Amino acid sequence: MIEYTHEHFMKEALKEARKAMADDEVPVGGVVVCNNLVIARAYNMTERLNDVTAHAEMQAITAAANYLGSKYLNDCTLYVTLEPCTMCAGASYWAQMGMIVYGAKDEKRGYTNVDPDILHPGTIVISGILAEECKTLLNDFFNLKR
Amino acid sequence: MIEYTHEHFMKEALKEARKAMADDEVPVGGVVVCNNLVIARAYNMTERLNDVTAHAEMQAITAAANYLGSKYLNDCTLYVTLEPCTMCAGASYWAQMGMIVYGAKDEKRGYTNVDPDILHPGTIVISGILAEECKTLLNDFFNLKR
Repeated sequence: MIEYTHEHFMKEALKEARKAMADDEVPVGGVVVCNNLVIARAYNMTERLNDVTAHAEMQAITAAANYLGSKYLNDCTLYVTLEPCTMCAGASYWAQMGMIVYGAKDEKRGYTNVDPDILHPGTIVISGILAEECKTLLNDFFNLKR
Repeated sequence: MIEYTHEHFMKEALKEARKAMADDEVPVGGVVVCNNLVIARAYNMTERLNDVTAHAEMQAITAAANYLGSKYLNDCTLYVTLEPCTMCAGASYWAQMGMIVYGAKDEKRGYTNVDPDILHPGTIVISGILAEECKTLLNDFFNLKR
């Protein structure tokens, strides 16, 4: 069995973020991985769906639970290009997410600015994977908007 | 024009919570009110939808935005029978909710246990409306489960 790296799956999350970019959405993407397999993919759709709750992570959590037939994602890893916000970290708490791997830090709205313990105590966190690439995509988006 | 009281709309939220109870869901209900009119109603559906993100507040925010054609709910009030969790408070931040009126306090998972500033700075909060009735419904549910 091939064991994929965190970079491998973050590249998949980045593919999703680029879809958001192409849709004129803040480019954040995510995938949920279980047993080395991508079981859910999503990107930020808050503009298209006119819905603040449509962050990449929220949709990925909903889709992964639907795939597994279980609300709980203890055996899953969420890869996301940007540090989750309070809402998404709170959703991850309820899902008992096994691991979160994120790329760029969100200095303003990242959950760690509020309280790292918003996550479930069982959730392992790894940050900074392909952070530069994740951040550059976001900077490109906001520069285009100026 | 009749000006309804907070109790009036909390009773509407309680009606939603009772639908959750009838569905064997943790009985939390909510309504979103704009210009004295209920524009969205929802109750907790995490079991039925097999989705941790399906809290009453999340669904009510999505439905209200859909009704108004605007992601932002500055002119709205969310009535909910239980203090919102971190996830729902985070969603309310993004929606820039004008006011939140909640019934019972959630001593364990309420957002105020983490940080009251999770909400948008413009959000007015009123708590304790029909708190006993809201709490009794929750206690009845958990007593039945024991």
